[in-house]
Amino acid sequence: MDERVREHAEVLVDWSARVEAGDDVVVSVAEDAHDLGVAVAEALGERGANVTTLYGSAELSRAYLKGAEAGADGDVPSFDDDPAVERALFEAADAYLRIGGGRNTTATADVESETRQAYAKARRGVREARMDTDWVSTVHPTRSLAQQAGMAYEEYQEFVYDAVLRDWEALADEMAAMKDALDRGDEVRIVTERDDAPDTDITMSIAGRTAVNSAASVAYDSHNLPSGEVFTAPYDTEGEAFFDVPMTIDATRVRDVHLVFEDGEVVDFSAGAGEDALASVLDTDAGARRLGELGIGMNRGIDRFTDSILFDEKMGDTIHLAVGRAYDACLPEGESGNDSAVHVDMISDVSADSRLEIDGEVVQRNGTFRWEDGFEG
Amino acid sequence: MDERVREHAEVLVDWSARVEAGDDVVVSVAEDAHDLGVAVAEALGERGANVTTLYGSAELSRAYLKGAEAGADGDVPSFDDDPAVERALFEAADAYLRIGGGRNTTATADVESETRQAYAKARRGVREARMDTDWVSTVHPTRSLAQQAGMAYEEYQEFVYDAVLRDWEALADEMAAMKDALDRGDEVRIVTERDDAPDTDITMSIAGRTAVNSAASVAYDSHNLPSGEVFTAPYDTEGEAFFDVPMTIDATRVRDVHLVFEDGEVVDFSAGAGEDALASVLDTDAGARRLGELGIGMNRGIDRFTDSILFDEKMGDTIHLAVGRAYDACLPEGESGNDSAVHVDMISDVSADSRLEIDGEVVQRNGTFRWEDGFEG
Repeated sequence: MDERVREHAEVLVDWSARVEAGDDVVVSVAEDAHDLGVAVAEALGERGANVTTLYGSAELSRAYLKGAEAGADGDVPSFDDDPAVERALFEAADAYLRIGGGRNTTATADVESETRQAYAKARRGVREARMDTDWVSTVHPTRSLAQQAGMAYEEYQEFVYDAVLRDWEALADEMAAMKDALDRGDEVRIVTERDDAPDTDITMSIAGRTAVNSAASVAYDSHNLPSGEVFTAPYDTEGEAFFDVPMTIDATRVRDVHLVFEDGEVVDFSAGAGEDALASVLDTDAGARRLGELGIGMNRGIDRFTDSILFDEKMGDTIHLAVGRAYDACLPEGESGNDSAVHVDMISDVSADSRLEIDGEVVQRNGTFRWEDGFEG
Repeated sequence: MDERVREHAEVLVDWSARVEAGDDVVVSVAEDAHDLGVAVAEALGERGANVTTLYGSAELSRAYLKGAEAGADGDVPSFDDDPAVERALFEAADAYLRIGGGRNTTATADVESETRQAYAKARRGVREARMDTDWVSTVHPTRSLAQQAGMAYEEYQEFVYDAVLRDWEALADEMAAMKDALDRGDEVRIVTERDDAPDTDITMSIAGRTAVNSAASVAYDSHNLPSGEVFTAPYDTEGEAFFDVPMTIDATRVRDVHLVFEDGEVVDFSAGAGEDALASVLDTDAGARRLGELGIGMNRGIDRFTDSILFDEKMGDTIHLAVGRAYDACLPEGESGNDSAVHVDMISDVSADSRLEIDGEVVQRNGTFRWEDGFEG
C-alpha cells in the first residue's frame, strides 16, 4: 500500500476525529475508496476502537431511488421518516468517518430532484443524529475525481496528499491569528481591482460573531479533511462582488457571478454562464439573498481549483462568500443567524490586485497576510 | 446489467427474505458484489422498504484484526463486548441480506486464530441480534469464487444462476415429501457399497425430531440462497461412514474422511488428507464427536462440487452429516440437542451404489427418491 494512504488514515483517525480506545466508529467507504478504508480499519483496530463499515455507493443510492420512483408509478415517491436502523446506528456512534471517492461523480444524475428532496426531507432526524457525532468527511483520490478535476490520476493523487498531509498544528496556529482578527473586528471590507474583471468592493458587519478556525479536526469544530479556512457569519452586506472561480450548482456549470447587495440583500445579479441556476438558488427563500458565510482559504497545499468544494474553498489566496444558511458555531449562544434551505459558496481568487480590511486596517493584500513575509501594508 | 443479476435480486428480496413495504433492511455487500447490491437496492426501493448498506469486506476485517494485533503488542487482542452500533443496527433491522463475493477467499489467512476467536466471542450478542432478523446469505458470482471452484468466470456464473434461479415453490413441494418421511420415521440407515471406497453403513435415531424443509426462504426457516436440502438432528449413531467429497477446514484441505461411531460417539477416525485438522475439530468439546445434522441435498441445479458449503451441501444426489451443534428448529420445543462450539459438514456422493432407508424402507436409491421416475425399491 502507498505509504501516503496510511498517513491519510492516521491524520483522519488521530488529528481529525480524535478517536480513542472504546469509541464506536462508523466508517462509510465509497465504491473506489477501498484502500483508504483498509488503512482506516487498521488504524482503528490499533487504537482499540470498534468499527462498523457502511458502503457509501452513489450507484446503490441511485438504484434505490430509481426503484422508489418505479414503485411510485409516476407520483413522487414517499419515504418513511427516519428509518429505525440508520437512526439507531448514528445515535449509538461516537464518530462518523465519511470516505468519498466513487466511480462516477454524476452517478445520480438521472434521479428526479423531487425524489431527492423527498428522500432528504424524510431523513432529517438521521442527518441530525449523524451531525451530533464527531463526523469528518474526506475523500480517497480516485480516477473519477481526477477526471472531474481535469487531471491525470497520479497528478491528482499528489494534489490530494499535498492538501491533506499538512502540519495541521502549525496551520491551526497561523489560522488562529486570522480568527483573532475577525473576532475582534466589527466590519470587513473586500476590494479587488482587476483589468480583466468587474471590481469587487463589498463591506459586511461581523460584530458579535465568532470565527471558526477550521483546522480539519473536531477539536476545532471542523469536519472536513482537508480543511484550512477561517469562516464567520457576516450580515448587513453592502456593495458589489465578483466571483471568478467556476462552480457547479445542481449539475449546472456556473461562472463569473456578479452580486449587488443593498441593506444586506442581493438586489441585482448576473452570471457569465448558468444564470438560471443562480437565480433558482437566490429565489429559494428570503435567507437565500443574504450572506451566511465569509470564509478565508488558508491551505497553501491546495494550489488549483478542482471543481470540488471540499478543496476549492480552502485554497490559499482565495476568499469565499456563501448565500444562505449561517453556521451555528459563528453565532452567540442562543442567537440565530441567517436561515435558509440553501448554502452556496462562491469563490474569488485574491492572489493579485486585492485587499481584505478589518475596521479599515489591511489584513491581507494580494493573498499575503500581515503576519507573513512580503506583506505590503 | 445482466438480467440474471436482477432475477437473483428478486428471488432474494421476494422469495427468500419476504421483504414488505416499510421493512428496515440491512444489506451487506462484499467487495466484488456491487452489481447484485445495486439490483437489490433497486428492488428494495421498488417494494417501499428502507435500506442501510454495510460494506462486507474481508480485507477491511483483516486490516482491523491485524491492527488490533499490532495494538496488543504480542498479547491476544481484547475486544469490547457487543459494540453499541452494531447491536443497535441489527436490533432495529427486520431483515439482513448478506451478499458474499469478495476478491480473495483467503483474505484473512494471516489473522491469528486466537484473534478470530476473541473477536467472535466478544460479538455473541451482535450475532444473536443478527440471527433474530429475517436473515439470508447468498453470493454474487465473482472471479475469486470461480477460482476457488476451479472454474472459468462465465462458467461459474452459469453454475451460480442454475443453483439460485429455480422454481423454489416446486422444489419446496418435493422437499416436503422428504421432510414428511423424516418426521414420521424413527431410524435412518445409510448404506453405500462401492469398489473404490470404504463402505458406509450407519444408523441413527431421529425419533421425536422435526426436519426442516430448507427451501431458501425465511418462510421455511431457511436462510441460504441457494438452498435445497432437508435436514434434521439425529442421535444415537452407530456404524461407519465414508465421505468422498473434499472440504476445507480452517484453510486445510481435508479429504476421504472415515468415521466410526459407537453409542452415538466417534470412536475412531481417519482422513486421506488433513487428518490433523479433523482431529482438532473432533477434540473441540464433547459434542464435537456426536452428530448434529443429517442433511439430504435436493438441489439438482447444483451439478458439481465447488469447495463452498453454501452450494456443496445442497447438491442433488448427496447426503451430509455434521459433527457438532444441532439446529434448534429440529428439536421439540424446550428440548436441547447436541451442543458444541463447532458444526462441520461432511458430504457423500450417493448417486450410485447407495441407499437411504427410514425404518427399514428404502426412500432413496442411487440418488433417486421413491417418488421419482426410475426409482428401484
